[in-house]
Amino acid sequence: MTLHISADRLRGFAASAYLTVGISESDASRIAELQIEADLRGADGHGVFRLPQYVRRIRTGGVNVAPDIRVERETAAMALVDGDNGMGHLVMRFAARTAIAKAKQAGVAWVGVRMSNHAGPASLYATMPLAEGMIGMYFAVGNANHLAPWGGIELLLSTNPIAVAVPAQEELPIVLDMATTTAAYGKVKTAAQRGETMPPGWMIDFQGKQLTDPKRADEGMLLPLGGMEAGFKGYGLALVIGLLAGTLNDAAMGREVIDFNKDDRTATNTGHAIVAIDPAAFGDAQKFRDQVDRLIRDIRGSKSLPGVDRIWLPGERSQAKRAQRLKNGVPMPEPLLASLNKLAAELGLGPLA
Amino acid sequence: MTLHISADRLRGFAASAYLTVGISESDASRIAELQIEADLRGADGHGVFRLPQYVRRIRTGGVNVAPDIRVERETAAMALVDGDNGMGHLVMRFAARTAIAKAKQAGVAWVGVRMSNHAGPASLYATMPLAEGMIGMYFAVGNANHLAPWGGIELLLSTNPIAVAVPAQEELPIVLDMATTTAAYGKVKTAAQRGETMPPGWMIDFQGKQLTDPKRADEGMLLPLGGMEAGFKGYGLALVIGLLAGTLNDAAMGREVIDFNKDDRTATNTGHAIVAIDPAAFGDAQKFRDQVDRLIRDIRGSKSLPGVDRIWLPGERSQAKRAQRLKNGVPMPEPLLASLNKLAAELGLGPLA
Repeated sequence: MTLHISADRLRGFAASAYLTVGISESDASRIAELQIEADLRGADGHGVFRLPQYVRRIRTGGVNVAPDIRVERETAAMALVDGDNGMGHLVMRFAARTAIAKAKQAGVAWVGVRMSNHAGPASLYATMPLAEGMIGMYFAVGNANHLAPWGGIELLLSTNPIAVAVPAQEELPIVLDMATTTAAYGKVKTAAQRGETMPPGWMIDFQGKQLTDPKRADEGMLLPLGGMEAGFKGYGLALVIGLLAGTLNDAAMGREVIDFNKDDRTATNTGHAIVAIDPAAFGDAQKFRDQVDRLIRDIRGSKSLPGVDRIWLPGERSQAKRAQRLKNGVPMPEPLLASLNKLAAELGLGPLA
Repeated sequence: MTLHISADRLRGFAASAYLTVGISESDASRIAELQIEADLRGADGHGVFRLPQYVRRIRTGGVNVAPDIRVERETAAMALVDGDNGMGHLVMRFAARTAIAKAKQAGVAWVGVRMSNHAGPASLYATMPLAEGMIGMYFAVGNANHLAPWGGIELLLSTNPIAVAVPAQEELPIVLDMATTTAAYGKVKTAAQRGETMPPGWMIDFQGKQLTDPKRADEGMLLPLGGMEAGFKGYGLALVIGLLAGTLNDAAMGREVIDFNKDDRTATNTGHAIVAIDPAAFGDAQKFRDQVDRLIRDIRGSKSLPGVDRIWLPGERSQAKRAQRLKNGVPMPEPLLASLNKLAAELGLGPLA
């Protein structure tokens, strides 16, 4: 039976780790909060799983532990945030708050980010505007290139994700969070750690053949969304998201992207973009949320294919998982526990469990 | 050999048709300009092909031939446009110009649209900001539901497209224009008219089996982008695009969407959204365009899979087709010519050719 660990315990553990490597108490707790939120939502490749790598990068000097995160350019409707190479979670938290504050005045605000770092799952930030009744959209440049242009074999693109969160009235919000590849690279990493095989369609090798062993991930590339039939669309999405989140903000894109799994030292100059949209600027916000409810119920209540027992809304499963993990704890596979306990020993902390 | 007809001739023909059904001379020429631009770019399902349907709808009273297209709500950064049930091309042209004007001041502008109609391919509007050196994004609710929620069989969603256009310096702009299904429904319609078979992966029937005869399209549904492996992503994209372009603007979405192929009378209340982003607000616009050039060249010059002779950028093929069709004319398959000549006879106009 898999061990489960409470979110509180995981948060405390992560925050302690950040404290030992020079991050302030308030920042450590903010990062830990967002990182463990990823575990709660089921984004296993983005949660506490990443702690050893983050800490290694901080200790190598690849991340600024005391960044001056600031608005570099702005209008009423937009801002460009410079993250000063701080932890991505802190930078994106700042950017999302900036977007929300501006959207309260302007109805819509777009905030671009440069000089940031890996910030965990896209949904963390796209959902921030929900608390103000707003729609959130988030784009990012991934932190390693595992995708080639359509027809190509050079890894010039990342899994550049998009997330969109839309508030409802009585129903849970709709939260889409997707990599623009068939599978996110984090899923390949967790499959490798768990000794699992990947389904066909996730990756191909440089001859174009299916690759199903996640331990051989270096010998191939992810397939863009659309797969062999329509992968040019996923390639196009990854590219334009990279232009919006990276190039537009003078952040890394294409050949400039650092593989942060292999290089702990060079600043990644990670780019993101977040958009906050206030439905109240477009009309009656209550009516909007009621319409979202109605749509959700129409979809959930609609007829299904033979063998399908339930139709899910984007983000619904993740929110169900969150409720369950809050209650029962976050599952902790043996290899992950071992890597976290090893980290704890290196940092002079007690073991996680 | 397929007959080819010049863009000028097609424009004149379309404009004359609109004049006979009560559209003003200036509006008729604006609609014809955009509609034939679709043919030039290779969006065959969205060009002159649609003329008989548009005219039929106008004659039935389903479209307002003299609309009062207006900004209903606005801030410095956004607007909600009411299209007064006018032709979609006119409404979206107005909305795009509104977004561009606002983005000149605010850096970024988002314009939502309600009470519009089918407006042709997404790229027509996403590319409008390019003339001002801006990035354009466009979302729309499609005009017939051919997509079910993931796992479902009720057609609650459309092929809701997204388009993004990004300016370069010396290179052609990057123009992504994609339906969130494996194939757009226009492609099914043109395949049916040409007597062609669809590749597997475009559509499935209500038992989940592949459907390849486009004449049987009514017996099935389009597959969302991602296909059998990751179609929940395409479903999610179609849904959130519908929320942004439809629900947010109090336009039709879900069950409210009229199938404009079957119903010529009811106002479609089509929703769109267009975003204009001025790179100059984010930094040095010249540097941005140079970086886009560099990325384009990196991609085009990168190594390809065995058997692939060229790597294309999104929109590159379409722009090549445009140059070729401007020179050689637009190919006119026999069934399309017959349908246009039949229309001409009905309207008391001379045949197209």
